[in-house]
Amino acid sequence: MPIYKAPLRDMQFTLNEVLDANSFWQNTPQLSHVDADTVNAILEAMAQFSEDILLPINRSGDEEGCTFNNGVVTVPAGFKEAFKQYAEGGWIGLGAEEEFGGQSMPKMLTVLTDEMLFATNPSFTLYPLLTIGAGMAMAQHASEELKNTYLPKMYSGEWSGTMCLTEPHSGTDLGIIRTKAEPQADGTFKITGTKIFITGGEHNMTENHVHLVLAKLPDAPAGSRGISLFLVPKFMVNADGSVGERNAVGAGSIEHKMGIKGSATCVMNFDGATGFLIGKVNEGLAAMFVMMNYERLSMGIQGLGASEAAYQNAAAYARDRLQGRSATGTKMPEKNADSILVHPDVRRMLLKIRANNEAGRAFALYTAQQLDVTKFSDDPAARKLAADRVALLTPVVKAYLTDKGLENCIEGQQVLGGHGFIREWGLEQWVRDTRIAQIYEGTNGVQAHDLMGRKVAKNNGAFVAPLIAEMREFNATLASHANLTFMHDALEQAIQDIESATQFVIEQSQQNPDQINAAAVDYLHAFGLLNFAYMFAKIAKAADGKDDTFYADKLRLAKFFVTRMLPELKSRVASIKAGSDVMMDFDMAYF
Amino acid sequence: MPIYKAPLRDMQFTLNEVLDANSFWQNTPQLSHVDADTVNAILEAMAQFSEDILLPINRSGDEEGCTFNNGVVTVPAGFKEAFKQYAEGGWIGLGAEEEFGGQSMPKMLTVLTDEMLFATNPSFTLYPLLTIGAGMAMAQHASEELKNTYLPKMYSGEWSGTMCLTEPHSGTDLGIIRTKAEPQADGTFKITGTKIFITGGEHNMTENHVHLVLAKLPDAPAGSRGISLFLVPKFMVNADGSVGERNAVGAGSIEHKMGIKGSATCVMNFDGATGFLIGKVNEGLAAMFVMMNYERLSMGIQGLGASEAAYQNAAAYARDRLQGRSATGTKMPEKNADSILVHPDVRRMLLKIRANNEAGRAFALYTAQQLDVTKFSDDPAARKLAADRVALLTPVVKAYLTDKGLENCIEGQQVLGGHGFIREWGLEQWVRDTRIAQIYEGTNGVQAHDLMGRKVAKNNGAFVAPLIAEMREFNATLASHANLTFMHDALEQAIQDIESATQFVIEQSQQNPDQINAAAVDYLHAFGLLNFAYMFAKIAKAADGKDDTFYADKLRLAKFFVTRMLPELKSRVASIKAGSDVMMDFDMAYF
Repeated sequence: MPIYKAPLRDMQFTLNEVLDANSFWQNTPQLSHVDADTVNAILEAMAQFSEDILLPINRSGDEEGCTFNNGVVTVPAGFKEAFKQYAEGGWIGLGAEEEFGGQSMPKMLTVLTDEMLFATNPSFTLYPLLTIGAGMAMAQHASEELKNTYLPKMYSGEWSGTMCLTEPHSGTDLGIIRTKAEPQADGTFKITGTKIFITGGEHNMTENHVHLVLAKLPDAPAGSRGISLFLVPKFMVNADGSVGERNAVGAGSIEHKMGIKGSATCVMNFDGATGFLIGKVNEGLAAMFVMMNYERLSMGIQGLGASEAAYQNAAAYARDRLQGRSATGTKMPEKNADSILVHPDVRRMLLKIRANNEAGRAFALYTAQQLDVTKFSDDPAARKLAADRVALLTPVVKAYLTDKGLENCIEGQQVLGGHGFIREWGLEQWVRDTRIAQIYEGTNGVQAHDLMGRKVAKNNGAFVAPLIAEMREFNATLASHANLTFMHDALEQAIQDIESATQFVIEQSQQNPDQINAAAVDYLHAFGLLNFAYMFAKIAKAADGKDDTFYADKLRLAKFFVTRMLPELKSRVASIKAGSDVMMDFDMAYF
Repeated sequence: MPIYKAPLRDMQFTLNEVLDANSFWQNTPQLSHVDADTVNAILEAMAQFSEDILLPINRSGDEEGCTFNNGVVTVPAGFKEAFKQYAEGGWIGLGAEEEFGGQSMPKMLTVLTDEMLFATNPSFTLYPLLTIGAGMAMAQHASEELKNTYLPKMYSGEWSGTMCLTEPHSGTDLGIIRTKAEPQADGTFKITGTKIFITGGEHNMTENHVHLVLAKLPDAPAGSRGISLFLVPKFMVNADGSVGERNAVGAGSIEHKMGIKGSATCVMNFDGATGFLIGKVNEGLAAMFVMMNYERLSMGIQGLGASEAAYQNAAAYARDRLQGRSATGTKMPEKNADSILVHPDVRRMLLKIRANNEAGRAFALYTAQQLDVTKFSDDPAARKLAADRVALLTPVVKAYLTDKGLENCIEGQQVLGGHGFIREWGLEQWVRDTRIAQIYEGTNGVQAHDLMGRKVAKNNGAFVAPLIAEMREFNATLASHANLTFMHDALEQAIQDIESATQFVIEQSQQNPDQINAAAVDYLHAFGLLNFAYMFAKIAKAADGKDDTFYADKLRLAKFFVTRMLPELKSRVASIKAGSDVMMDFDMAYF
């Protein structure tokens, strides 16, 4: 059976020693309720919950899946009880506003609890995640009445939330959705249309479902400027807050998928359902993007969590599996073969996963810290800088961590040889479950386009420049670390390569806008590598000079990353500079 | 539902125009029975069989899977009837010796028929494939009596074959197998032990199963020098060739797997079963490797076939899916959005798959041609050179084409967005079914180690040098093609990069044998890229100067490959040169 132990020491090292979270909390008045002891206690509690409650129902949830019967969706055995425990533990509102029953914990903490959740049961995790995302969009854009009616019930786990965007003909291009919202005399709207791929659209764990739905008013402008956001409850809510009559919305079916089979992916039919406007008419996309950006960061964490689980299971297998002998002489003469850990290629696979995980965790926490600044800082200039940084890095966390997540799950599966393909070992489920993270909440191609276009080329690198300045400033501090010359030089080289690629795309795209999308995915990967190099520079600095194998291994891993993984960056830049003509020269009929 | 049309024009172009197969057949007396018309007729017949018979039962076979009940394995609906038709069409013996009922067709042809089979139903294809591999090992090493008794029934499809190597504790390291073979007075052996991961070990499509089993005699030397090969039939064969009493062998269970669910993967128990020695005592591994090498080439074709199917389905989706507008101005004003083919990144994904497929097909055919020389040529020097080339390239075809196969299936799935994750669209099945090809018949890490060690470093590059000389000689002929300077220069640069990497590993490994395994996977990928560049040079030369979009597109695809995919080679070489210390410096306890 698959194993998992939350990597608490690595988490605490990254939080406290690499990113100095404690000082940040102490220096941010709105985070004065946070301290290291509280954080550690929460991390330990989540470690226990994820290891003891969620992991045991992960494989069985995959085997059983969700079932659909006449509009009723039943989650796999154990999910309902786990959800109750999760809700009672106050986990849903961990990062939410206190006035609605939340605990106002920083994103730097929930990133780590999310990692444990995704490492042990991604199907389960999606249910509360969608609720939190919906709550966040409502907290910023809904009326006080809607917030007071719905949010406390959502954070308590009595009700759950969804986001209803996609339609059969409309995914990335939301401007062409057809779902209609007809204004009623009482200020509500009648919502009619079909939404697909709705995570947790219907299930038997909560007494009510709160759907956030994108729809168009009859007189709405064409395209994405004519989309409004509505709250559509499954059951109407009575004046006393109790659940009332059924609204005209329900699941038509659930999808049969490659993975996350314990998560109900529903077709939702709205047949003149009563909806309440959230935010302003025709400004629904902006409100929904509050939720989308939150979910995108979380999807990156899905990749990271899966990858940590893949590492742990692959390493455990490698330790125990005896096969062949070391090329440099027998290492375990008492056995009839050596552990496969004597083979450099097995180590290469494991180290690649681990380097991605440690840099990925630091990078996610770094981005979370920026998000916390935007939310909790009293300094407007700091908030603005952090908001730009979040805008720049969100697509990178989403796409790079999920691309690496899948790669790492596949690599971990490979370590197990034939056993990796067998269901009971669990690795193949990680591959299947993680695959969706590259697709949903905007495909990774869409993330790359957002990065390369809106976040880089279209503002002439205005978000990139301060990040690079910060990296160079930090890199200068490595001068006093004789051990870290390799790290300093590698980071500077990576910066120069990204500067060159950025300049190339900015210049070329002024003549030919196709250059942006042509460069997008390679740029995203190059940019991910640069940020991982930056994180390893921070990790190495935090570890340097400390007398403990734990720290010495951090330097070794940084060296592995720099010498064996970072070289990919140059090949990505070379591909970018090949430009778009080599793709656009083909006639449409070629494909 | 998934689609597939055999790419006959591309196949014929590669066979006839790129590799000039016709001249080869005409100049090889033992292949005088082969001509272009025969080959085309066979290709067309297989196109029809794979499209009409195999594709329709591919998804249903995945959904239904094999079932195990009290030792009896039942294949999915339609498989038994398809197998009967396949056998009656004479397909099993297409490449086998005429004296046993085969048709002696060259590997260059069966590589293409295999591609169609794997593109439409990999689970089905494994059943006859194992039979053919077993037959091949028997044809070279078994006694006349065994051959005459078994081979005609195997090629006719009445009986089927398996290979039984792996045991629970022994996969890559066959030297530690425990299955015993006790000599009997009548010259037979009693075989006792458990074998796992046995493809087609038991099923209801044939009346008898012919197991080739690795086992150890009581007095056998330790390790791989003490392994013998035995033929163990499920039912003993009577003197008249009819099936007699049951032998003491049977399936204990079948595995529940990530994919190829229509292929029965069995645990086989041998309880003193009667076995017949194949070849000499303690030389079983050599006999089995005849089969293994054949299977390894075929596994590469599995990757290629899947990748072609992924391309066709992704391209079909992209043509029809309307989403967003071209960055350079609306292309389909009559629709509410443009086809996603207007987006460079969608083209990048599709072109990457297609470039891998066209180079991969040429590379597989090139290797098959070398195999045909070893089998059919009358010139001993040519046979020797070709045998070395086959030894060098077999692990590359196996590992590189399956690594690219999985990558391409994932990329194809990505083109479909959310629909790629849904079972009914079929792409996710390609991902799951193709994943095994990187693992079985020796993991791709083992292939890379074989390439880097036995085939390159340990003979000081003796197999590589003549291949590079051939590439340079060919490249010189591009001088008269003004259009192909880009191709010439890229190939020469790739050659130099590989020469440098090869030299590095040969030198370093003399001091430190771990350098071989440390470099292995990166070298395999670099070497795969070099060979694909060589193939594109051949494709481009064959297409240059011909006045047809079909040919002009070949040059465009070569340019896409050179500018956007080949740059990876340099980063692979950089990783190789990082050496093994960055991995071996970690203590074993680190993992």
